[in-house]
Amino acid sequence: MSTSRLPLALTQGDPAGIGPEITLRAWLALRGEPEAARLPFFVLSDPDVLAAAAQRIGLDIPVAPATPARAAEIFAEALPVVPLSGRAGAEPGRPDPATAAGTIESIDRAVAAVRGGEAAALVTNPIAKHVLYAAGFRQPGHTEYLAELAARPGEPPPHPVMMLWSETLAVVPVTVHIALSEVPRRLDTALIVRTGRIVARDLAARFGIAAPRLAVAGLNPHAGEGGAMGGEDRDVIAPAIRQLQSEGIAATGPHPADTLFHPRARAAYDCVLAMYHDQALIPIKTIAFDEGVNVTLGLPFIRTSPDHGTAFDIAGRGIARPDSLLAAIRLAGRLAGHGVPWLP
Amino acid sequence: MSTSRLPLALTQGDPAGIGPEITLRAWLALRGEPEAARLPFFVLSDPDVLAAAAQRIGLDIPVAPATPARAAEIFAEALPVVPLSGRAGAEPGRPDPATAAGTIESIDRAVAAVRGGEAAALVTNPIAKHVLYAAGFRQPGHTEYLAELAARPGEPPPHPVMMLWSETLAVVPVTVHIALSEVPRRLDTALIVRTGRIVARDLAARFGIAAPRLAVAGLNPHAGEGGAMGGEDRDVIAPAIRQLQSEGIAATGPHPADTLFHPRARAAYDCVLAMYHDQALIPIKTIAFDEGVNVTLGLPFIRTSPDHGTAFDIAGRGIARPDSLLAAIRLAGRLAGHGVPWLP
Repeated sequence: MSTSRLPLALTQGDPAGIGPEITLRAWLALRGEPEAARLPFFVLSDPDVLAAAAQRIGLDIPVAPATPARAAEIFAEALPVVPLSGRAGAEPGRPDPATAAGTIESIDRAVAAVRGGEAAALVTNPIAKHVLYAAGFRQPGHTEYLAELAARPGEPPPHPVMMLWSETLAVVPVTVHIALSEVPRRLDTALIVRTGRIVARDLAARFGIAAPRLAVAGLNPHAGEGGAMGGEDRDVIAPAIRQLQSEGIAATGPHPADTLFHPRARAAYDCVLAMYHDQALIPIKTIAFDEGVNVTLGLPFIRTSPDHGTAFDIAGRGIARPDSLLAAIRLAGRLAGHGVPWLP
Repeated sequence: MSTSRLPLALTQGDPAGIGPEITLRAWLALRGEPEAARLPFFVLSDPDVLAAAAQRIGLDIPVAPATPARAAEIFAEALPVVPLSGRAGAEPGRPDPATAAGTIESIDRAVAAVRGGEAAALVTNPIAKHVLYAAGFRQPGHTEYLAELAARPGEPPPHPVMMLWSETLAVVPVTVHIALSEVPRRLDTALIVRTGRIVARDLAARFGIAAPRLAVAGLNPHAGEGGAMGGEDRDVIAPAIRQLQSEGIAATGPHPADTLFHPRARAAYDCVLAMYHDQALIPIKTIAFDEGVNVTLGLPFIRTSPDHGTAFDIAGRGIARPDSLLAAIRLAGRLAGHGVPWLP
């Protein structure tokens, strides 16, 4: 088997969320397509849980226990499930700390499969941190946990960077899940530079963009208008851009954030470095609400995930859309060099 | 003449900016259209300045001195210009404090025309505050100056509210031109309530929306997630929403701002109350960069303006697009009851 046919490893995510059903729907959507042969995947879960989820939402989907090595061959006929040892099932919409060990085992083994050469990339379904915390999970989030798994012995974990990607826009928030009032004091030149370096490096190495163009957003209205509305654009962001430029990275800005995202503006860059969560998430969710993908840069392996949560409120009702998971699977396949075209 | 044919009054804006040329192009675009008869306008300027601007960019446009009363009748044949007494001309791209008196006279007389029943609504071209400041202008901005002109004798000026409007999205930032770090401390429940009341009232009275639906955005990521990422959503914004609801206004939220602007979400409201400049401006400029209109609510007359500045850098080169000014003229006509359809 050539490495270009290595399967993708999907985690199951929280089993009380929409992970099981969107995984089933993603298999159904892909198996009839020409690209199925280029995007085989397996999911680390319990075959009975997936079979029950299919029955609950009225889908006639064959589920087959598999090993990573046999997943690609099984994929055309059935959804390959690599069984976990922990408990994987839960009632839809009723998150249960008793499933936490299985949820974490799914992540651990998917990472091990990717690092061990049995899978080409990692695609993670959504988890609910509060469920894992109740079972003793100690990391601030999914991505930080992956960074810890990626650490080399005796070294600090790598600095993971969240990119939101769609066919038409890619954005990276430099600060993420903090209160807006904390953003101005958390932003510093070193953080922007470190983030920009990782983005430029991974856009080149993973996305195949020879000289990535980064548009750096300002923090304040009109990027501060020369200091008249806040000094951070001039004193914190502009020096970071100069530093990135001095390292040969094609960074521009700080740009007024409101002028960065219309179609003509988007033609001028490959990715926007945004200063805070909503500055990055508002434009991409406005343009590509269902098709956005969360990509983690800065890790020693490829990791994508759908850009939504567990959606406990609609789990098990058969109405969850697999669009974002499908986009995450396609992007993982592209980044892994599976020959999936860049435009649909 | 029926009131439905009252002309719109356009100010000239800074004569060194793109105001003169986009006014010429707007006339050219409208005069051939069936709606021209419903959207006659005059501009308060100097006929020679407009004629010179037309010649400079190679447009053969007849310009005719006019009075407000004769403007509608002239409009089909020539651009009606109501002459100023102050100096109105400047070199494109070279703002000149000597023109400030004329720029201000244009605003004063346009407001007087609207208040005196000679014009149906006010459409303002962009000004540059720093040019007016150099000539002794004392207001923080265009809108505040209009509010002062709108004040009744002996009473404080009305509270003007900026709405950005397009065919597909309307947004109102509760705070506007302040540093991002000041937003959390400037936001208060009373300001949100006062803004929401004005928006609801004017959407009903001016836009003809019987029961306007206001979607109120949260300040923090995920609207604070119950206080885990900032308390303002729970402690400042939610009480404002409850107050508006108690007054019979259909306000909802606080909504996570990133989920508010995709097409399905937009179907659920008539206007978003955003908490700060970029939260409002990013989505509307992403969706409708050229067609956005700035509408001032809370004034005793209708005022619209294009959603861009003087653009000194491209003035006089013939490349400025009149799209936003045209949208401002059409919206002013609609709000004035001129029978312009709501969808193009």
